[in-house]
Amino acid sequence: MRIIVDAFGGDNAPVEILKGTADAVSEYGITALVCGDEARIRAVLSGNGISQAGMDFLNAPDVMPVEAEPTEILKSYKNSSIAAGMKALAGGLGDAFVTAGSTGAAVVGASLIVKRIKGVKRPALGPILPNSAGNYMLIDIGANAECRPEMLLQFGVMGSAYMKHIMGVENPRVGLVNIGAEETKGLELQIQAYHLMKNNPAINFVGNVEGRDLPLGACDVAVTDGFTGNIILKHTEGMGKFLSGELKSMFLAGFSSKIGALLLKKSIAAFRKKMDYTEYGGTPLMGISKPVIKAHGSSNAKAFKNAIRQAKNICENDVNDKIAQALFIAKENA
Amino acid sequence: MRIIVDAFGGDNAPVEILKGTADAVSEYGITALVCGDEARIRAVLSGNGISQAGMDFLNAPDVMPVEAEPTEILKSYKNSSIAAGMKALAGGLGDAFVTAGSTGAAVVGASLIVKRIKGVKRPALGPILPNSAGNYMLIDIGANAECRPEMLLQFGVMGSAYMKHIMGVENPRVGLVNIGAEETKGLELQIQAYHLMKNNPAINFVGNVEGRDLPLGACDVAVTDGFTGNIILKHTEGMGKFLSGELKSMFLAGFSSKIGALLLKKSIAAFRKKMDYTEYGGTPLMGISKPVIKAHGSSNAKAFKNAIRQAKNICENDVNDKIAQALFIAKENA
Repeated sequence: MRIIVDAFGGDNAPVEILKGTADAVSEYGITALVCGDEARIRAVLSGNGISQAGMDFLNAPDVMPVEAEPTEILKSYKNSSIAAGMKALAGGLGDAFVTAGSTGAAVVGASLIVKRIKGVKRPALGPILPNSAGNYMLIDIGANAECRPEMLLQFGVMGSAYMKHIMGVENPRVGLVNIGAEETKGLELQIQAYHLMKNNPAINFVGNVEGRDLPLGACDVAVTDGFTGNIILKHTEGMGKFLSGELKSMFLAGFSSKIGALLLKKSIAAFRKKMDYTEYGGTPLMGISKPVIKAHGSSNAKAFKNAIRQAKNICENDVNDKIAQALFIAKENA
Repeated sequence: MRIIVDAFGGDNAPVEILKGTADAVSEYGITALVCGDEARIRAVLSGNGISQAGMDFLNAPDVMPVEAEPTEILKSYKNSSIAAGMKALAGGLGDAFVTAGSTGAAVVGASLIVKRIKGVKRPALGPILPNSAGNYMLIDIGANAECRPEMLLQFGVMGSAYMKHIMGVENPRVGLVNIGAEETKGLELQIQAYHLMKNNPAINFVGNVEGRDLPLGACDVAVTDGFTGNIILKHTEGMGKFLSGELKSMFLAGFSSKIGALLLKKSIAAFRKKMDYTEYGGTPLMGISKPVIKAHGSSNAKAFKNAIRQAKNICENDVNDKIAQALFIAKENA
């Protein structure tokens, strides 16, 4: 299996990206096609003592900055490392593509260069977030700020396939993010989506889920428009930081507390690991004809390596074929 | 000062409501007009040894259930304790009204019986939530699922008046909840609201705030539509519960951890107090011509007492007059 990687995406590129890629090659038995300025990549590899075993290179001289308009991936930045990776994936030079670059550019590039699975209305970003039951997928979190009801149904179908075949959840419970349990709650979007989802055998729909229910494990796939999803995703991060900060000040509150903190050290490490997004890899871009993984912009080597592992799992489990099949069933029953 | 209370609203009515009211009378030097089935109220007072000093009663035989359609406050439940309280406030029988009953009925009743402040497009619910800087107001959280840009500007103006005059924040920073920092981000609602808010001297607008920024203290007033606000409010509750649960299992993880937990006891109590919504009282219904406070449905005596204290503060500081004045300035500069 060959995974294509964007060497120049994210805050810690290229060093951490290349380290993570080298680790993935040695741990997971894959090969890598590394996209970016080849001379610089080679210099960074040798300068940092990173092995280039199992790596091929695809020279792409430019770097697309995160603040660039996403559509520029087709224009001013068509020779960037991220554009090269998308084209390599579309052209069959590898099995999946992993980038820690701009989310917007990844969505646009994947949609327009790699293309969608047949029948998919819009691709969606589905990160895995921690909750009291373990974790859940929140989909979409920003690929589509505005959505139509049919899109939400498809998000549920795609998310279910991922949770089943990658996360090992037998019959994933799909919830619709809303402001009340009754099917009459919410805006027109939620009311119509509820109706579509309720009657479709392609998903195990458990009804509306409120903001309170998400961290408490009410569903395995939480379906929402990209605006609301983006707020929830970032609020999860912010609450985690806020509450960790409160914990920290608790531990510094007095001598006895410091002893307490020492004794709790092991448990706290386990807690941090649970809250650490890098454990889950990156965010899969659901609905694209070939696997595209958006690693977190602040990915270090470990996070990037985990994103590559995730890409490998998606390939090995034919998740995209399974999504296409489930979408067909969903459409037949719509 | 006389505070009108709904004796039959909330999960713990009437006992906890009456206890909280009695405590407020004795601690804050107010009198209370208690609405509901008078015979039952008197029986509960004497049966529980609760003092009725400082209390008058307004007999209202019915109780409006939370699941009833909010507009029924004007029809089937026009003789309910909550409807009686609204009418008493409108008729000048007291200075403010506090209810732990249905949020929907409180919004409809306040809007149609007590009426809005002149110029207010729509009233809004603005709870105070904890964050790393202390706390902030999130407005709206469900009075209006769908909003227009002018409404968001008014929410910012009303929230600022509250944070300044009740919470003591000198020049409250108003943020617009959005999915990115740039003023071009978001849906049409956010883009237009940004423009209105940016140019209005009635508020100290600090721009867009993302989900991550809210718990980290980026603003004192976070303005949003009621759909998004409701999700954030409940997600705050859910994340608090989830993370407290994780803390608890940390403490039970082993013998050494139990010792750690004992030593940390005091700090944990302080943490819980910070996360406890009952400390802040209830949620003020902003934009109504007289103060209406929606206490949490699960209020105990302490929470209800705090909601009464909050009502008293709003009256003493003439917050409603200040809101009317600020809205006038905002309109002149729109």
